[in-house]
Amino acid sequence: MVVRAAVAGASGYAGGELLRFLLVHPDVEIGALTGHSNAGQTLGSVQPHLAPLADRVLEPTTAEVLAGHDVVFLALPHGQSAAVAEQLGDDVLIVDMGADFRLTDAADWEKFYGSPHAGTWPYGLPELPGARAALEGSKRIAVPGCYPTAVSLGLVPAYAAGLAEPEAVIVAASGTSGAGKAAKPHLLGSEVMGSMSPYGVGGGHRHTPEMIQNLSAVAGERVTVSFTPTLAPMPRGILATSSAKARPGVTYTDVRAAYEKAYADEPFVRLLPEGQWPATASVYGANAAQIQVAYDEAAHRVIVVSAIDNLAKGTAGGAVQSMNIALGLDESTGLTSIGVAP
Amino acid sequence: MVVRAAVAGASGYAGGELLRFLLVHPDVEIGALTGHSNAGQTLGSVQPHLAPLADRVLEPTTAEVLAGHDVVFLALPHGQSAAVAEQLGDDVLIVDMGADFRLTDAADWEKFYGSPHAGTWPYGLPELPGARAALEGSKRIAVPGCYPTAVSLGLVPAYAAGLAEPEAVIVAASGTSGAGKAAKPHLLGSEVMGSMSPYGVGGGHRHTPEMIQNLSAVAGERVTVSFTPTLAPMPRGILATSSAKARPGVTYTDVRAAYEKAYADEPFVRLLPEGQWPATASVYGANAAQIQVAYDEAAHRVIVVSAIDNLAKGTAGGAVQSMNIALGLDESTGLTSIGVAP
Amino acid sequence: MVVRAAVAGASGYAGGELLRFLLVHPDVEIGALTGHSNAGQTLGSVQPHLAPLADRVLEPTTAEVLAGHDVVFLALPHGQSAAVAEQLGDDVLIVDMGADFRLTDAADWEKFYGSPHAGTWPYGLPELPGARAALEGSKRIAVPGCYPTAVSLGLVPAYAAGLAEPEAVIVAASGTSGAGKAAKPHLLGSEVMGSMSPYGVGGGHRHTPEMIQNLSAVAGERVTVSFTPTLAPMPRGILATSSAKARPGVTYTDVRAAYEKAYADEPFVRLLPEGQWPATASVYGANAAQIQVAYDEAAHRVIVVSAIDNLAKGTAGGAVQSMNIALGLDESTGLTSIGVAP
Amino acid sequence: MVVRAAVAGASGYAGGELLRFLLVHPDVEIGALTGHSNAGQTLGSVQPHLAPLADRVLEPTTAEVLAGHDVVFLALPHGQSAAVAEQLGDDVLIVDMGADFRLTDAADWEKFYGSPHAGTWPYGLPELPGARAALEGSKRIAVPGCYPTAVSLGLVPAYAAGLAEPEAVIVAASGTSGAGKAAKPHLLGSEVMGSMSPYGVGGGHRHTPEMIQNLSAVAGERVTVSFTPTLAPMPRGILATSSAKARPGVTYTDVRAAYEKAYADEPFVRLLPEGQWPATASVYGANAAQIQVAYDEAAHRVIVVSAIDNLAKGTAGGAVQSMNIALGLDESTGLTSIGVAP
Repeated sequence: MVVRAAVAGASGYAGGELLRFLLVHPDVEIGALTGHSNAGQTLGSVQPHLAPLADRVLEPTTAEVLAGHDVVFLALPHGQSAAVAEQLGDDVLIVDMGADFRLTDAADWEKFYGSPHAGTWPYGLPELPGARAALEGSKRIAVPGCYPTAVSLGLVPAYAAGLAEPEAVIVAASGTSGAGKAAKPHLLGSEVMGSMSPYGVGGGHRHTPEMIQNLSAVAGERVTVSFTPTLAPMPRGILATSSAKARPGVTYTDVRAAYEKAYADEPFVRLLPEGQWPATASVYGANAAQIQVAYDEAAHRVIVVSAIDNLAKGTAGGAVQSMNIALGLDESTGLTSIGVAP
Repeated sequence: MVVRAAVAGASGYAGGELLRFLLVHPDVEIGALTGHSNAGQTLGSVQPHLAPLADRVLEPTTAEVLAGHDVVFLALPHGQSAAVAEQLGDDVLIVDMGADFRLTDAADWEKFYGSPHAGTWPYGLPELPGARAALEGSKRIAVPGCYPTAVSLGLVPAYAAGLAEPEAVIVAASGTSGAGKAAKPHLLGSEVMGSMSPYGVGGGHRHTPEMIQNLSAVAGERVTVSFTPTLAPMPRGILATSSAKARPGVTYTDVRAAYEKAYADEPFVRLLPEGQWPATASVYGANAAQIQVAYDEAAHRVIVVSAIDNLAKGTAGGAVQSMNIALGLDESTGLTSIGVAP
Repeated sequence: MVVRAAVAGASGYAGGELLRFLLVHPDVEIGALTGHSNAGQTLGSVQPHLAPLADRVLEPTTAEVLAGHDVVFLALPHGQSAAVAEQLGDDVLIVDMGADFRLTDAADWEKFYGSPHAGTWPYGLPELPGARAALEGSKRIAVPGCYPTAVSLGLVPAYAAGLAEPEAVIVAASGTSGAGKAAKPHLLGSEVMGSMSPYGVGGGHRHTPEMIQNLSAVAGERVTVSFTPTLAPMPRGILATSSAKARPGVTYTDVRAAYEKAYADEPFVRLLPEGQWPATASVYGANAAQIQVAYDEAAHRVIVVSAIDNLAKGTAGGAVQSMNIALGLDESTGLTSIGVAP
Repeated sequence: MVVRAAVAGASGYAGGELLRFLLVHPDVEIGALTGHSNAGQTLGSVQPHLAPLADRVLEPTTAEVLAGHDVVFLALPHGQSAAVAEQLGDDVLIVDMGADFRLTDAADWEKFYGSPHAGTWPYGLPELPGARAALEGSKRIAVPGCYPTAVSLGLVPAYAAGLAEPEAVIVAASGTSGAGKAAKPHLLGSEVMGSMSPYGVGGGHRHTPEMIQNLSAVAGERVTVSFTPTLAPMPRGILATSSAKARPGVTYTDVRAAYEKAYADEPFVRLLPEGQWPATASVYGANAAQIQVAYDEAAHRVIVVSAIDNLAKGTAGGAVQSMNIALGLDESTGLTSIGVAP
């Protein structure tokens, strides 16, 4: 099987990471690569780490350029995917790495993104209950946000097992690549190195409704989420600390058992042995999540720490994993759970 | 006035930072400097940034060496301060930068530190209600832990004003200097750069009872604390994200007003203008805290983010600030609120 | 004595660092602060670490705003200083932190900067032979470039003592703040963290003629300089490794003696004890240089390593040091040789 | 073909990186993994990024454990390889990732390593003239040092083409993993983040004779090397700036042509297009080198900048590449030239 794949937005961080995965995917042939302001430049000039593609030239992001592929990945700014998808037709597999088709609730979308809702596509987090079935054979995939990936992998087992009260408190640290490649003063190396700072505090971050959607779906009731993202002095990685009050009578043993069961057979999610804690370095560049749980007796809270690479399992790796399922390939094809450390 | 000061534990990070402050304190003359394994070495060989003291030689930590000073700072491992203090007598001001005399509850001490409780000294966080009065003229000061400093400055106004339910959830990121200068594999640069990881999850961190003590004192009831510390890839700084459910009827305006009132006249705590968020870089090397508050309507939570330098306001700067009060000096003498950035 | 100082370009890194020094200078009163695109904003919004000046408002950079001060510091883009200086008149001390008045050779200026030469002002590196005399009472000061500061402090003693052949090879690593605060993609935190890269290789860096000028002046002959700057993953600091073939018969003892003599009485340059090597962390935030020398017998080369903080001794600290001399103040007033470490 | 490989020293950085490559090598089956102080522990506890091997248990480093494999990789401290190799016999392919068998000159070995010379094995830098022929079918491989890899790839084409005088000056920056995993105070994250410092200055670094050996071999005369290594605040990567005076009459065109010819067909060395400079981030985790050249007319020097990942092309990747050649496999099997960036 040869899957011919195009990447719209190949000059950004998500696009570059996707190409890093596609280059080693045995069934994928890399087709058109498009950029916006970088059209006409070589990929080598904007993604110098992708040596095998260094001489490829970025094309403009148009339906003509993207036509004729089996899969088209869209790594575009929010709000641009629907128009492109419409032009490409129903027969091509479109994997949207933006936010446009993640939310089921149009009001949530409009509140957080300020534009009309484009619709909802099958959600590309295979580890969620029911997700694989929805992805199989689908021609449309909405790749989850990086924070929702980390947080959902962290809290879904607790809510699915009825262990936690429906009020989650989440603080997550993200590497700077999560903020993209556009040059902004507060993202300068001089500003971020040696510093941690929060943003979007108080419920305003756009990934909040996506977390609520995922957690509520398994909890069977509305889960509120207090989410505080912070910017950490590292290029990649998300470390999410998620907690909620334990339901009455819940013990540590219950918690541990629920997570062991949830992730026993997942190829890319690893519940660590007791006593070992996740580190973002351990999943650097990998399509992998590390999870660990605790139960704080004094505070009666279940605490889950999850580590992912925001660009890998959090975006591009997850996209390829979902593509594999949609195409009927082995889910792990071309993906690695091995991090680059130290 | 000339205050002659000795520093026990001058070769470590806390001791070095203390000397950085004492060197520019107009009323302090630096006396004996002691080390343990480094006794006999020059300070320049272990603290090469303290140029004016480069040729000073570290002495062993004994009562003889520490005798004859007006102030003795103890930057020793936990459990060693009581014996030294006893030998030095009641007339000398002893500032303990360790944990030994912070906790009022002996059972808490024994549970978290595993040794007999040595006692309780006036607590060196002047911004707490009543703290300054207890410090004035005192011959003993217990310098707070770095995390409790950040968290107490963050949540005390909310609890003092009755705005929050007594269940606090705190996630904090600390620079690596908080873990000290002893060489341990997980603290190697190769391990920490580019990585975030948690530790002491689930209620086990020793700073937890100290936070509970401070918050409960102003809340007038027992406050539970769920505290998750994380190690961030930076040498210094703590960013603490603290939250609690708002009491019924509380509005953002209430929250903002409480913090404006609490910190209107504090020289070293700055409530940032609305829209601006704390960054650890902004208080790098400064005896200063930056605070910002939010109210998450959907989750009904008060969220406070505080940034300090763990070694400065979190340890050595706070120690000097409290010393100033104890000695009757202007509280700000020798201290700066200016960070080193970028 | 009260020296009223204005800062043109207060929103950038050099301007911010200068204010950090001026805020603790006992004889300076900070007057007008100007910005370009930031005019009208508070200083707190662009320099959040300068707490005492947080509410000051940036004014536009005009002669009217800058008039009426004793000292005007210019932290402006290259080529803009001459016009401002002319309008301010001859009675005010103007300290140019840009490159405009550093070079004595108009052809060099035009070759490297591509614009007409504005002139030459007394050069603000007091440690150079003859520099203090030229600065005393001067109304004009050209602050050296950061790399030339590190390299000249490193190699001038060797050339002044006739120890080295006139062909210097220099490789230096700089923190990212040396590249300024303008947002450019290659300076993003995501790009620079975890990476080292060179730039301006092959003789093209604008600081090259300034190094040649300083070294040739003491060597008494034209010294060629091969200079390769590299960008290091840190916000501040320059580590310069400078070497040249030793003149025939030169021994390590000769080299050591020359440096000991050169820096015996310098308050801000420290020749480290044998066996200890400079580290940029040791001079973080300090108006200080650390120097160490070696003689490689097999390669017959004198090797000098120098560490400075590019913003401090390399720019703003050096500017204040020279201002002190020009005004007849003690040279060390308001300056510190103590670094912020770890 | 199934190649059964054992790794002695699997708990260190070189061993861990080797396993990262072997895990994706289609012809290799990973056999015994040994450690020293970590024997008895799971690999997951010391190399948490190598998820597929997490449950494997480290065995002691003995001949019995290492026997019965097709290939044995030795990632041991200097001086220990010879004894192990002797016990394993002549039929097994032994790949020594330590220094023991790199140098041809016994006097050099004894001078720099202070122990008796163990011998010389075929040198595992395939890109050197004649290296592939020596590696084919060999049962012994000496993997080059990381710095000599970067420097030799940088300067060999210049010396092989007779373009440079035999006096090379090299300054290189290395990530901290090059110093290994043993916990030493100066390698703590607190010390290295935000700092650059040199070490082994003046000709003392043990990689110096290895560079001289490689450069002299192609130059046809003794090349002297002035080598200054520096420690950079990043976990991985070497950026080497190497230069030498150009031979009379040499032009930039000559230099460019020599490098284009040298690396036209090398799968893992990439001469960048003119105007683009190497960055260590671009080869992060890759068995790849980026090279760029310049000619400084004013200083008459050829300047070459090379970037590698010290653990990958600089150690473990290079080891696998050479193993492939020795075993008659395609040289690129299991290796990637794609870096992990940003």
